[in-house]
Amino acid sequence: MTEYIASPKNERIKAAKKLTTKKGQKQGDAYLLDGWHLVEEALASGLTPKTIYATEKFLDERALRPFYDQLIEISPEVAKHLSDTETPQGIFAVMPRELASLPALTGQFLLLDGIQDPGNVGTLVRTADAAGVGTVVFGAGTADPFNPKVLRAMQGSQFHVRIVMADLAPLIAQLQAAGIAVYGTELNVNAQNYRELAPQEQFALVVGNEGNGMQEALLTETTKNLYIPIKGRAESLNVAIAAAVILFHLTA
Amino acid sequence: MTEYIASPKNERIKAAKKLTTKKGQKQGDAYLLDGWHLVEEALASGLTPKTIYATEKFLDERALRPFYDQLIEISPEVAKHLSDTETPQGIFAVMPRELASLPALTGQFLLLDGIQDPGNVGTLVRTADAAGVGTVVFGAGTADPFNPKVLRAMQGSQFHVRIVMADLAPLIAQLQAAGIAVYGTELNVNAQNYRELAPQEQFALVVGNEGNGMQEALLTETTKNLYIPIKGRAESLNVAIAAAVILFHLTA
Repeated sequence: MTEYIASPKNERIKAAKKLTTKKGQKQGDAYLLDGWHLVEEALASGLTPKTIYATEKFLDERALRPFYDQLIEISPEVAKHLSDTETPQGIFAVMPRELASLPALTGQFLLLDGIQDPGNVGTLVRTADAAGVGTVVFGAGTADPFNPKVLRAMQGSQFHVRIVMADLAPLIAQLQAAGIAVYGTELNVNAQNYRELAPQEQFALVVGNEGNGMQEALLTETTKNLYIPIKGRAESLNVAIAAAVILFHLTA
Repeated sequence: MTEYIASPKNERIKAAKKLTTKKGQKQGDAYLLDGWHLVEEALASGLTPKTIYATEKFLDERALRPFYDQLIEISPEVAKHLSDTETPQGIFAVMPRELASLPALTGQFLLLDGIQDPGNVGTLVRTADAAGVGTVVFGAGTADPFNPKVLRAMQGSQFHVRIVMADLAPLIAQLQAAGIAVYGTELNVNAQNYRELAPQEQFALVVGNEGNGMQEALLTETTKNLYIPIKGRAESLNVAIAAAVILFHLTA
């Protein structure tokens, strides 16, 4: 029979709640997934959660059957305590906090240079996934991949693409040495119009901070820098929008 | 000499604060812009605010000179009270709450069918602006164009594109009668790959609700429905991302 926890003051629940903060995640070497879709994606990817906390209505889910040893039933009150959404679905998984290491330098890469907004970061990963880009690299100053808001916006795409944290400057040099063109992005009409590039099997695209764009020091290291011609009077595009427009062009 | 208001309890400030809510906006027939960039865009567009509330540091701004009659100085405390951001810039403008009426049916249109998230709605307007699309139509169920989060995400693009509220079903018929193709969007591989369309001078693109997509009743009324091929394992794209990918393709 599955264990049942009714109170948010239970020690295990206190420990699970800590896994929604950066400090707690480091200490516990784990993070908390919130919601059925994300838990399902994690299980479908062949990962084994350390623990699954679920309210009664999830107990009969077929996908959970192989994980009865990890399953603990919780009350709706506990679910509300664990979630940072207003209407939690009532299922959580404690996942090992692991990032991929850099893969062989082949294929398509999206490099994030200081993207601060968690929603943007998550949407960028989800968009890379949809475009078929295999690896997303989180550079310095980018929101943490285990930030709950990043996790929510990724919608499970972290289980489909490789997520890596790395210094971008040496990586750009390595990619180029491996024969992969690295495209920066800038708000500069003297940069190259992205539409002039043909779709390509291998490339790395770098996008920069919401307010300041890419670091100057990186802009000079890229193979080429691209811009998106703006026809109206908007001054710029949201960074995830800009990345999407270029990625879907290059992967067509 | 400019009037000075130090207290959030001042009656004019209480009235201004109400202009950040839907009910208050309807009663006052006005809304509140928050932040220098938005105020500057409004003034640059030739609009005259009813009132400008500004902290001391803005009083010498050149762009405000023609508006001294509308200018009231406020304390940082009042600025904090009026803003729904944590670190307000300290300048606000009370603007007449006006929407455009439907323009002559020519050019490019983006139609929003029940887009609920204010950030998505604002980003869609900003993206339409950048793509050179002239008119964005807010259909039923779409977040209000004067919602403070929508205003923030639009980043002033509401002063560059025409924003209209209208019933989408009759509008789609009118657009088609005027010879404009109306493209729906759906997550359906039997719909047409957007990449098969050539860029075009005139079109209307309809995007739908984040969870449910476009209304069935509208999908059957469009000229064609488009889809974006997904290469990875993401189940869908964010609605603003999807709109951007198609708009930048069609307006190339």
